[in-house]
Amino acid sequence: MEGNGAGATRWHISRPSAPGGPLADAGSMSIRAVLGRVFSSVDASSARPVLSLGSGDPTACASFGPPPEADDAVVDALRSGKYNGYSPTVGVLPARRSAVAEYLSRDLPYQLSPDDIYLTSGCCQAIEVMISVLARPGSNILLPKPGFPLYESRTMFSNLEARHFNLIPEQGWEADLEAVEALADENTIAMVIINPSNPCGSVYSHDHLAKIAETARKLGIIIIADEVYDHLSFGNKPFIPMGVFADIVPVITMGSISKRWLVPGWRLGWIATCDPNGILKEAKVDKSIESYINITNDPATFIQGAVPQIIANTKEDYFNKILNLLRNSADLCYGKIQEIRGITCPHKPEGSMFVMVKLDLSCLDGMQDDLDFCCKLAKEESVIVLPGSALGMKDWIRITFASDVPTLENALERIKSFCQRHAKVEA
Amino acid sequence: MEGNGAGATRWHISRPSAPGGPLADAGSMSIRAVLGRVFSSVDASSARPVLSLGSGDPTACASFGPPPEADDAVVDALRSGKYNGYSPTVGVLPARRSAVAEYLSRDLPYQLSPDDIYLTSGCCQAIEVMISVLARPGSNILLPKPGFPLYESRTMFSNLEARHFNLIPEQGWEADLEAVEALADENTIAMVIINPSNPCGSVYSHDHLAKIAETARKLGIIIIADEVYDHLSFGNKPFIPMGVFADIVPVITMGSISKRWLVPGWRLGWIATCDPNGILKEAKVDKSIESYINITNDPATFIQGAVPQIIANTKEDYFNKILNLLRNSADLCYGKIQEIRGITCPHKPEGSMFVMVKLDLSCLDGMQDDLDFCCKLAKEESVIVLPGSALGMKDWIRITFASDVPTLENALERIKSFCQRHAKVEA
Repeated sequence: MEGNGAGATRWHISRPSAPGGPLADAGSMSIRAVLGRVFSSVDASSARPVLSLGSGDPTACASFGPPPEADDAVVDALRSGKYNGYSPTVGVLPARRSAVAEYLSRDLPYQLSPDDIYLTSGCCQAIEVMISVLARPGSNILLPKPGFPLYESRTMFSNLEARHFNLIPEQGWEADLEAVEALADENTIAMVIINPSNPCGSVYSHDHLAKIAETARKLGIIIIADEVYDHLSFGNKPFIPMGVFADIVPVITMGSISKRWLVPGWRLGWIATCDPNGILKEAKVDKSIESYINITNDPATFIQGAVPQIIANTKEDYFNKILNLLRNSADLCYGKIQEIRGITCPHKPEGSMFVMVKLDLSCLDGMQDDLDFCCKLAKEESVIVLPGSALGMKDWIRITFASDVPTLENALERIKSFCQRHAKVEA
Repeated sequence: MEGNGAGATRWHISRPSAPGGPLADAGSMSIRAVLGRVFSSVDASSARPVLSLGSGDPTACASFGPPPEADDAVVDALRSGKYNGYSPTVGVLPARRSAVAEYLSRDLPYQLSPDDIYLTSGCCQAIEVMISVLARPGSNILLPKPGFPLYESRTMFSNLEARHFNLIPEQGWEADLEAVEALADENTIAMVIINPSNPCGSVYSHDHLAKIAETARKLGIIIIADEVYDHLSFGNKPFIPMGVFADIVPVITMGSISKRWLVPGWRLGWIATCDPNGILKEAKVDKSIESYINITNDPATFIQGAVPQIIANTKEDYFNKILNLLRNSADLCYGKIQEIRGITCPHKPEGSMFVMVKLDLSCLDGMQDDLDFCCKLAKEESVIVLPGSALGMKDWIRITFASDVPTLENALERIKSFCQRHAKVEA
């Protein structure tokens, strides 16, 4: 052996996180990474508590807890001792069956089979699985703008080209389907639809969903339907799953118990192949999903084991209570924003937990852009909101209204003071 | 829209699982996939129960359950309501601190900091993270043969070249370090050491670990130390973590509560950067790990929240009881194999849950290879063992001795009958 100190050896260590590298870029665009940068602007010496309207996780508020039946189901599964071992790759059968027959199929014109269901570590892993499974050299995927940045990260990591179609604020954030037609080509592997929408708070009508399905069919591309906010619709439009249209176009539905049961930290989601005509099966997409999940990790087995009881025992009252809370918060948030000069909200939220808010920087003094706005707001008011540039929407912000009323009121008051203090004096 | 039936549309669907594709190959080589094929040979009409010595998961045996303190810790964390939300990317701080200060550092000559720890969904996700983080175009990694097939799967999926060094059965399955020197080059990113060994059941001495460290240092390559079976050593040699030698070579230690606490289905593992000289930090490996786990999924937050209590409250008696069970089972298994003509065991197991057994096909009639042996054994005797070819060891099998004594005795009796029935009649 040569040398003494560790410094004498030249170590061949990969440096994949060098700035500009795909891993560094993919990692830095995550919501957690961007919110981390905003959080770091908070003035630690301030006596005021930090109010976060940044992430889609209201579980810190007492009113947004899971139903006690869900806790009981997990404790029962754990204490049974039957779920300490590895699960089958695709998930434990009772959870697949129950997540299907007694849950997703309720809202579909056909019956899903347990074989259509793959349990995942939350909807995030479902995104990872589907992007990894479908990516191939030279291919592209159509993503909504604004959207959810994990799609961009995983797309970049899989060397898949992201092509963005706009959601149109003036049309209730409907997808620009002309843009979709212009973007798609022979190498397009799928289009992604997030409904109810993160980050827009919109809920698509039956008519718009049907148009999306017809467009995808015309183009010959399948739909990845991100329905992690399924049923969190509190406006005039009911939630309609994309799978209703699976006779027109094959749909891969992704969901989770994270949002409806308010347990994002439990990491239990699913992929459902809505494929009544057997088109995905014919292309062996089912086998590809199985191959990939064979080499990745599973959700905790006892949480899988709890799913049937969670779904069966949660009462309608619980869901209604949460919808009422969200409706009230959304109304409050929308109303307050109307009073603030410098920010506008083009569409009243009717679903999910978010609203997209446009910054009018011409009214605000000394704000470079949305990131600058968010960092200054964090520093001066200890309020956290998400910069729109994290979602591809420069000079917008995303506000999470899923919070308890005093926090929301307090945070919006602080945003109002902030905008007033920075209002440009008219010449 | 053109056409009526779904068949009229030409769907552009990726077919990545086509035979021979990297995803199909990577998925089909998993232990779960191979065991699935062996299981499918079982004669369903047989009245005898299936006895599985196939996987590293003894949790179906009543005697191999977790300590009650672990269940209690999870229930407490869940019922506290504090862990329903998303966790920080790197894991919740108390778990990182406790997993470090009160657990891994006990056996090291220096103190790990919470910043050295990243919580993962079991050790499997730790493997995925490290391979994904270190892979770069044109690079290679040194893997033990036999080893754990997830390394091959993830290596293949990341377009990383796998180069194999032998473990030598006659030398207690020590690594052939001359082979390591011959295989390494400028593009080698790491070597993997699994100790206690899956699949060999060996435990490395201080002397051999020191030689591995010196070899790695001479070559300038870091060590990935897979210690998922840490402390499961019941022979003459104590378990010594590779991190003891981190002053000589940077070590990335991977572990989990899966095996020592017998809860593989809980999916809670870790990556620990053992880097007292700051070499990994200088190469920003810490940042790369963070970038990657920013775009992947986390272990369930409440299970993370339970880790400090699990580690603090589990009694030494529990660990000793499990070690005694494993020692007795290993002795029983080794003794029985000695009595069976046609299979031999070159090294008595002294750790983990496995033993590698060599098939002498010249003594057995009509057996093509190890897969054929395993499938016929499954069909005729309803006994499941893992074909060695899944681990790169043609005409070997891996037997899991971590089972209750009646099952183990019964299964080995059946293997004995099977070998007797198929014994080649001497000419």
